[in-house]
Amino acid sequence: MTSQAPNGLYAEVQHFYARQMQMMDRRAFEAFAETFTEDGEFSHSPGQLACTRPGIVAELEDFHKRLYNGPVVRRHWFNMIVVDPQEDGSFLATFYAYVINTRPGAEPQMGPVCLVTDVLVRVDGELLNKSRQVRQDRLLLDS
Amino acid sequence: MTSQAPNGLYAEVQHFYARQMQMMDRRAFEAFAETFTEDGEFSHSPGQLACTRPGIVAELEDFHKRLYNGPVVRRHWFNMIVVDPQEDGSFLATFYAYVINTRPGAEPQMGPVCLVTDVLVRVDGELLNKSRQVRQDRLLLDS
Amino acid sequence: MTSQAPNGLYAEVQHFYARQMQMMDRRAFEAFAETFTEDGEFSHSPGQLACTRPGIVAELEDFHKRLYNGPVVRRHWFNMIVVDPQEDGSFLATFYAYVINTRPGAEPQMGPVCLVTDVLVRVDGELLNKSRQVRQDRLLLDS
Repeated sequence: MTSQAPNGLYAEVQHFYARQMQMMDRRAFEAFAETFTEDGEFSHSPGQLACTRPGIVAELEDFHKRLYNGPVVRRHWFNMIVVDPQEDGSFLATFYAYVINTRPGAEPQMGPVCLVTDVLVRVDGELLNKSRQVRQDRLLLDS
Repeated sequence: MTSQAPNGLYAEVQHFYARQMQMMDRRAFEAFAETFTEDGEFSHSPGQLACTRPGIVAELEDFHKRLYNGPVVRRHWFNMIVVDPQEDGSFLATFYAYVINTRPGAEPQMGPVCLVTDVLVRVDGELLNKSRQVRQDRLLLDS
Repeated sequence: MTSQAPNGLYAEVQHFYARQMQMMDRRAFEAFAETFTEDGEFSHSPGQLACTRPGIVAELEDFHKRLYNGPVVRRHWFNMIVVDPQEDGSFLATFYAYVINTRPGAEPQMGPVCLVTDVLVRVDGELLNKSRQVRQDRLLLDS
């Protein structure tokens, strides 16, 4: 059995994600990027990798311009979070995620379900993402 | 950065919401109303505001009679909860919510996705809602 | 009012479920069964009851062979967990659950919404399921 994360840490990780993704959903991309380390890495699609905070902001601005340009409210839901302390002092977090998009005159639509793998580190007392990899379940089926 | 809620409080808020909404979903409206302060305020729709525990019970009974009179099981899901301690000792909680309705012979249907803003206070050691405002994402689009 | 579970326990239960159900979803049925006591009981359908760890493994293998034989990624989501300490030292956990299934070329599909009732016990310091009963909301409508 993997060593357990302390329960205080578990709530802290949940809270960190809630705050982080509310920033994403109101398109506060710079604030979102600040939840990553300076050299943070963020991959949401195969073959795509955004590095550093400015790189993450640029990627998110481009992504939303291309795919979510019209009137839409996006909400990221994370759940079933497993947190495993690593030997180097970082934490490996593995969890489920989806987005629910609300557009005018339509029912809310659930986007692809994803498995997310984060490496979290503590910098000056605060949790930060060192990396995030998002893998869509539908792409798992093709492999 | 806003000051962090202690991790113990975070779990307490999650647990409070789970218990509160299970009461709502089994239509224990008086028990639900007791999770609000005596002068509590509850708004689930623009222009609607229920005040005091008896007022909240009356609103919920009326709401369910009008909209959920037939056979239906309702389940409220809350997630991505951010808790910010306020200077007056209260807590501002901001989170995502939806309802999933199950009706005979149909797939479960997700109701509108909402952003909920609560003011929580501690009375005699227990958390209570001083107020709740529910805003549907689809109404954000019209503004 | 029922006595409250301590906040540390609440996070521990959430974490236990996340780890347990990630095992289920990657079809690590033996590891899943080890999250139950030796004499554990698991009922996911009316009239069905799997007992002991080998019995649970056999039931899950059979269930997946019959219903999820083709290419599908399954993800269990648990939420709105209420944990009530019992007089015998066990914990009664009551919560909402659904599965989201992703199949090739289709939108993710939410399975039936369920109310789950667990009895959890602590064995050698670790939480384990003594029993789990899953009840689908759509079956509540028929009763």
